[in-house]
Amino acid sequence: MKNKPLFQQMTIVGVGLIGGSVARSLKKHHQCATIVGYSRNEKELKKALALGVIDSYSTDIKRAVQGSELILLSTPVGAYKAILDELKDNLSENTVITDVGSSKQSVINAAKAVFGYLPPTFVPGHPIAGTEKSGVDASIDNLFAQRCIILTPLPETNREAIDKVRAMWQAIGAEVVEMSPEHHDHVLAATSHLPHVLAFSLVNTLAQMNEHNEIFRFAAGGFRDFTRIASSDPTMWRDICIENKEAILELMQIYEKQLKVLEAAIQTGDADKILSLFSHARDARDEHVIQ
Amino acid sequence: MKNKPLFQQMTIVGVGLIGGSVARSLKKHHQCATIVGYSRNEKELKKALALGVIDSYSTDIKRAVQGSELILLSTPVGAYKAILDELKDNLSENTVITDVGSSKQSVINAAKAVFGYLPPTFVPGHPIAGTEKSGVDASIDNLFAQRCIILTPLPETNREAIDKVRAMWQAIGAEVVEMSPEHHDHVLAATSHLPHVLAFSLVNTLAQMNEHNEIFRFAAGGFRDFTRIASSDPTMWRDICIENKEAILELMQIYEKQLKVLEAAIQTGDADKILSLFSHARDARDEHVIQ
Repeated sequence: MKNKPLFQQMTIVGVGLIGGSVARSLKKHHQCATIVGYSRNEKELKKALALGVIDSYSTDIKRAVQGSELILLSTPVGAYKAILDELKDNLSENTVITDVGSSKQSVINAAKAVFGYLPPTFVPGHPIAGTEKSGVDASIDNLFAQRCIILTPLPETNREAIDKVRAMWQAIGAEVVEMSPEHHDHVLAATSHLPHVLAFSLVNTLAQMNEHNEIFRFAAGGFRDFTRIASSDPTMWRDICIENKEAILELMQIYEKQLKVLEAAIQTGDADKILSLFSHARDARDEHVIQ
Repeated sequence: MKNKPLFQQMTIVGVGLIGGSVARSLKKHHQCATIVGYSRNEKELKKALALGVIDSYSTDIKRAVQGSELILLSTPVGAYKAILDELKDNLSENTVITDVGSSKQSVINAAKAVFGYLPPTFVPGHPIAGTEKSGVDASIDNLFAQRCIILTPLPETNREAIDKVRAMWQAIGAEVVEMSPEHHDHVLAATSHLPHVLAFSLVNTLAQMNEHNEIFRFAAGGFRDFTRIASSDPTMWRDICIENKEAILELMQIYEKQLKVLEAAIQTGDADKILSLFSHARDARDEHVIQ
């Protein structure tokens, strides 16, 4: 039984892991009749077309968005401002825009810088999903199943626009929650941005050591898991560090203090303190993190 | 075709994840006719017996080692000295001893403190394998398949004893390498001890935050992987931090410096520097770490 799709046409700006996975998921669920790709990188678009992820593409933004009910921005956040600049005069009033950027205040600021305000049809969003891989080759049709999507609309955001974006994510199996952009940035700095920053730094620490080939050889499964996120897209993570700078720096400082507490306990051989720190961490993780 | 087993009888001291997995693996490969368990915790031994991991047990060390060709120490390293003290007068000259401790210089020092020297039949070892789980319930019969085992014998260690321990690990599918205890401790501080210390500290940082319930809710797959090792046994990791203190502290300081470099780049908005740090980390991981 095929119901009427949610959208007749939508445009995906930046068809990589996330954009490609949204497209594949919508296709699987028959929720969008035509998916148009846009990028400055035609090679990426050709590949997405060949893979059947998109139905057509254009490297001309005006053509790419013509007739689309929904535009999804899924490039690294650092590229948003330039894209919105190009979009500005090619946007019909009813077209809903949403995005998948990992920092939300900066996205809203970029939109404000271009439009003078956050357009009421722009619904900032962020899917809490992804892998360490990147590119359309890595896109899959169930990346958002049972995953959480955070929307951060402002009071002036159009309710119908929010509901449309919400419906899109729900149609591909995700759960949608709303919170303020400030709160989003604070929470994600802790659960995602800080861990990435720590993992990149750990790999760099080891790569610096003289015997680094040998060192990586003796890395067990725990190390592979721990550093998997250090294989993530460097450009995307550079942009996140720039865009969510304040929250990330605050967390890094809290983390460094925490590390110093442990370091002091190791230094003085305070076995009870070390055990209490480790036990506390294990209990917190086992209580809160679903395996 | 059943060949003659390598060992007629061995004793496993501490039948948890590692000791239990050695026992299960040897049984699977028919390499030990009788496996005797020893522990101060009789409940653990009863469970291991019920699970078929060991064939018999004793809480009397003299009985537990009588007639065994090989004794495997697989308790947390902090307990070794007390165990060796008890073993000292109950050891026949030909009995080979090995262990699975994550720090090797401290194990050798513990043996020297008890015996006055490292007995030539004591072959210090460390399997680079494990999971974040602990206890005999978590033991499996293929934990060491294709994994690396590091032996750190001294020049005075008996070659036959080394070969016996080597044969045991190879019989259950592992690859054995030898290196000095100092080098082992340095390498493992980097690939295993530092990541654990960082993961425990990350979870504690997040657990401190007011909204910690919510924060853990929005943790994606990368976070789960990254913090998995924070579910490891706190007692075991306390002992490792005490026993390999110098190498761990040195690595923590190098790591903190690395983190400060990134922090400064984020602070000043140095996009090129951030990108270069992240790219370098991704390349190093992708080059060296087998997925």
